[in-house]
Amino acid sequence: MRSAMKFSKIPTATITRLSIYSRYLEAMVQEGVKIIASDKLAQKCGINPAQIRKDLAYFGEFGIRGVGYFVKELLFEIKRILGLNKIWKMALIGIGNLGSALSAHQNFIRQGYEFVAVFDVDPAKVGRRLPSGQIIHHMDELDQVVKEKGVEIGVIATPAAKAQMAALRLINSGVKAILNFAPIQLQLPEGTAVENVDFTVKLDNLAYNLTMAEG
Amino acid sequence: MRSAMKFSKIPTATITRLSIYSRYLEAMVQEGVKIIASDKLAQKCGINPAQIRKDLAYFGEFGIRGVGYFVKELLFEIKRILGLNKIWKMALIGIGNLGSALSAHQNFIRQGYEFVAVFDVDPAKVGRRLPSGQIIHHMDELDQVVKEKGVEIGVIATPAAKAQMAALRLINSGVKAILNFAPIQLQLPEGTAVENVDFTVKLDNLAYNLTMAEG
Repeated sequence: MRSAMKFSKIPTATITRLSIYSRYLEAMVQEGVKIIASDKLAQKCGINPAQIRKDLAYFGEFGIRGVGYFVKELLFEIKRILGLNKIWKMALIGIGNLGSALSAHQNFIRQGYEFVAVFDVDPAKVGRRLPSGQIIHHMDELDQVVKEKGVEIGVIATPAAKAQMAALRLINSGVKAILNFAPIQLQLPEGTAVENVDFTVKLDNLAYNLTMAEG
Repeated sequence: MRSAMKFSKIPTATITRLSIYSRYLEAMVQEGVKIIASDKLAQKCGINPAQIRKDLAYFGEFGIRGVGYFVKELLFEIKRILGLNKIWKMALIGIGNLGSALSAHQNFIRQGYEFVAVFDVDPAKVGRRLPSGQIIHHMDELDQVVKEKGVEIGVIATPAAKAQMAALRLINSGVKAILNFAPIQLQLPEGTAVENVDFTVKLDNLAYNLTMAEG
């Protein structure tokens, strides 16, 4: 209980950075790197060393002064903190171009996220099999399939006009976390975790860099 | 010169937050909101008020103490800072499911980003027209088309194995900024701005929230 209360104060930005650290640490494990200095890790991630130390300090003591971090141990700890020491079960709603791309994207399963069910309402799609092997269910089966398969996260790749309804149906089926790719702001009951994927925020960073380089 | 030097020290995280503020301010302009208190803006964006004030302080004085920010003026200033007072011209490489979805995504043009050219190498795709009206060019035409159309940003939606080559060809054609959707780390010459879109970082935030809620 005490640790849960402490954890709840951790800023979203810190969680996002932990996630980024884990990506680089994973690459290092694969390259056979055993120990990394905090300055080197900071440089790889494009984040300043003091920030990394501050982020990790929320969760306890990591690393050895003057030596660095043990790569595997740090990765293990970060994954434990983030809750990534398991496979998370996801449902995908909307099998248009984006949904099809997401269903085939290798990064999900590599990072511990698995689509256990996919849904659409188009009669031309329902009942067909994706290249991944998944059969496309009709949205009318959502409630039943979510419960049977133990879906924990809903991923919305519908057109904007259908996203709010899709999200509410997921929540009514007991799903408590939504990853939303539709370009609208969802209105959801309190207690639902929502993340919106907006590609253009990344473009704004590029535009700023180009503007500065020209200026 | 002096301002350019000052600008170059601004953290990426601040730029990302400015971009997020602009999304909410735009929604407010559309709702007819004229003035917003900094606490209210902070709450909407899910960021603490002190952080917003600190972010804006990099660029000068904004808002009136005890009153708030003038929504339109603040939006205009943020767009000017980010370099969004123009339309940025983009090329899209790879017209699979993801590329097709991106080419049709309404958010890009809404936020000031336009695909002026699209490319693939598949003979079955080259020469065809997308629903958006774009003709798919062969990669062999990249250099010529990039120069003719004045492409400033390259968007990579190829399979992972083709992404590095696509990025290098863009850069050799004079493009200085890359938005990469392929699940690999690009190795690019210094002076190139790169942003990687990794959907799973957002999922890690959800996983963390679910883990905390259970714990």
